[in-house]
Amino acid sequence: MLNFAVGPVQSPDSIRSIGAEQVPYFRTPEFSKMMLENEELMRKFSRAPKDSRATFITGSGTAAMEAAVMNCFTASDHVLIVNGGSFGQRFVEICRIHDVPFTEVRVDNGKMLTEEMLAPFDGLGYSGFLVNVHETSTGVYYDIEMISRFCKRRGIFLVVDAISSFLADPFDMATLDVSVMITGSQKALACPPGVSVIVMAPKGVERVNNINVKSMYFNLKDALKNGERGQTPFTPAVGILRQINARLKEIDEGGGVEGEITRIGELARDFRAKIRGMPLEIVSESLSNALTPLHPLNASAFDVFTCLKNEYGIWVCPNGGDLRDEVFRVGHIGALKKTDNTQLVNAMKDMQARGLL
Amino acid sequence: MLNFAVGPVQSPDSIRSIGAEQVPYFRTPEFSKMMLENEELMRKFSRAPKDSRATFITGSGTAAMEAAVMNCFTASDHVLIVNGGSFGQRFVEICRIHDVPFTEVRVDNGKMLTEEMLAPFDGLGYSGFLVNVHETSTGVYYDIEMISRFCKRRGIFLVVDAISSFLADPFDMATLDVSVMITGSQKALACPPGVSVIVMAPKGVERVNNINVKSMYFNLKDALKNGERGQTPFTPAVGILRQINARLKEIDEGGGVEGEITRIGELARDFRAKIRGMPLEIVSESLSNALTPLHPLNASAFDVFTCLKNEYGIWVCPNGGDLRDEVFRVGHIGALKKTDNTQLVNAMKDMQARGLL
Repeated sequence: MLNFAVGPVQSPDSIRSIGAEQVPYFRTPEFSKMMLENEELMRKFSRAPKDSRATFITGSGTAAMEAAVMNCFTASDHVLIVNGGSFGQRFVEICRIHDVPFTEVRVDNGKMLTEEMLAPFDGLGYSGFLVNVHETSTGVYYDIEMISRFCKRRGIFLVVDAISSFLADPFDMATLDVSVMITGSQKALACPPGVSVIVMAPKGVERVNNINVKSMYFNLKDALKNGERGQTPFTPAVGILRQINARLKEIDEGGGVEGEITRIGELARDFRAKIRGMPLEIVSESLSNALTPLHPLNASAFDVFTCLKNEYGIWVCPNGGDLRDEVFRVGHIGALKKTDNTQLVNAMKDMQARGLL
Repeated sequence: MLNFAVGPVQSPDSIRSIGAEQVPYFRTPEFSKMMLENEELMRKFSRAPKDSRATFITGSGTAAMEAAVMNCFTASDHVLIVNGGSFGQRFVEICRIHDVPFTEVRVDNGKMLTEEMLAPFDGLGYSGFLVNVHETSTGVYYDIEMISRFCKRRGIFLVVDAISSFLADPFDMATLDVSVMITGSQKALACPPGVSVIVMAPKGVERVNNINVKSMYFNLKDALKNGERGQTPFTPAVGILRQINARLKEIDEGGGVEGEITRIGELARDFRAKIRGMPLEIVSESLSNALTPLHPLNASAFDVFTCLKNEYGIWVCPNGGDLRDEVFRVGHIGALKKTDNTQLVNAMKDMQARGLL
């Protein structure tokens, strides 16, 4: 199968082969050394400021989203949440569960977040801001520089879910004054799913250390303390962490984060050029390099997904809920090449000829 | 390296090779079918009663322990916790964090839990009972039949952490009237770490469905609902779940759970026979087949661990805290053979000749 899903994505052979190795025992100096390397490279690639920290959670991206909210906000906060799709909605639900007061900035599917939309919320005393910089469900990439300016003006604590954007779009935690950044193993890191990563600027570390979180597994203070010696409080997904280590080093040695962003950006542009003239509408006003959300003009989006899977051996990424028949998504992250784009486009052209697109 | 740790353990080649495959996209009927098989085989192997359910959490065993407590108990409960080591202590801390009233039954390191020790707690209105059937930190296997009788007498809701005991020791959820059972991917399941499993008898399912848990990631009600169609609420560790699937089927086709228990039991007996006469004391009154806890009479336990690792290419399992220099543990779970036992025993005999044991 050729995989254009937005996670799990295709892993390079070098990463896959590590998956076949025995998983080593991990309460060892060897594992600690590797974890300290992982932390260092995550800080480097997110351009985190001096004295930032990174921690690795065995869990999905949602685990990291929930851990970030629980460890950074309390009932004394009032956070602004950009809600433009199912991942924005997820932050809303997490705040509701944990009694963190919030206000939503609603953004219609596919639409950008503008300065005018944020303006009414300025100067109202918000202490936190939660945004999925790339709303993966709709393929909208928000203007993080504009959001950063909004937060800087009032000293608002900014938490960015960059799960599907990290390594695909430019991101500079220090310059943007982002306090907490989240990503996952199965997006542009191109490792199997099972690990999420939280990078904390010093302001983030300070919050985490001052909040008494009602959780053992999501106690980031404990995770940070163990992380000082390259360890984790509980048995982590050691195999995936070894794959992350290899992948981070490969990126570091092969052009760094800029090289990776350039590569993914080129793949995205190549695909978007190849579908010109086809009965497919790009339904986002502002695209990430990570994916292209498409509305098929003459077919159900879910039927396109199913046909590509069953008849062409290709996975694209379907949508759920209201968008099920409206939108499918094509990812550009993971071990993909321009020839893979051609194969997908040819399959869709064949479907078009058969009256299925 | 030859691995006698108690997790991650050695995986069979058939399971390792799956780790090298591309991880498939998972919002598909194919993945759902596999997950329903996983659930069915987990129910079968834990001998769960009719209408039981099983759910798979991407996280460590501690994640499942915390999820079980959060989803089964509230401030209206009063639970009895067997605390005979660091995993019993973990249940204590989880209940403290989540405001679940509890009483500890303290058991000294290496000691059995007896009927006499439980008697003073009988008839005092406890609504729940938490036990690590195999206290992995000290290698004590508690008398689960005696515990079961104690709970049955008063209708106490019994939660059993069988993380390191499942598939290594006999366990019959239905007969024992266990409401919730927990295990992990990296113990006798012999898969990489990253997934934990919670099996719920109908009484467990009922509690979970009636408690309003303050968590998104650990909302078992949501997990059970998604599980009905073989799905998970969030992106799971798809690769590990595929390995679990292959392993469960291998066990099913190769002698079932009895065959696996017999095999591990024989390995344990073989090892224990081979170390007779050596300066090693077995420090548990009641052993699980899963591991042998050893006190070296003439050396620091941690030094033995380090020497075996660095000079013989063998991992045993060190202890932390007070037991660091007192006890190390030798596991019998995972892809081990009697010849591996011989290799470890020969290494220790060599150390003895060198004055290091």
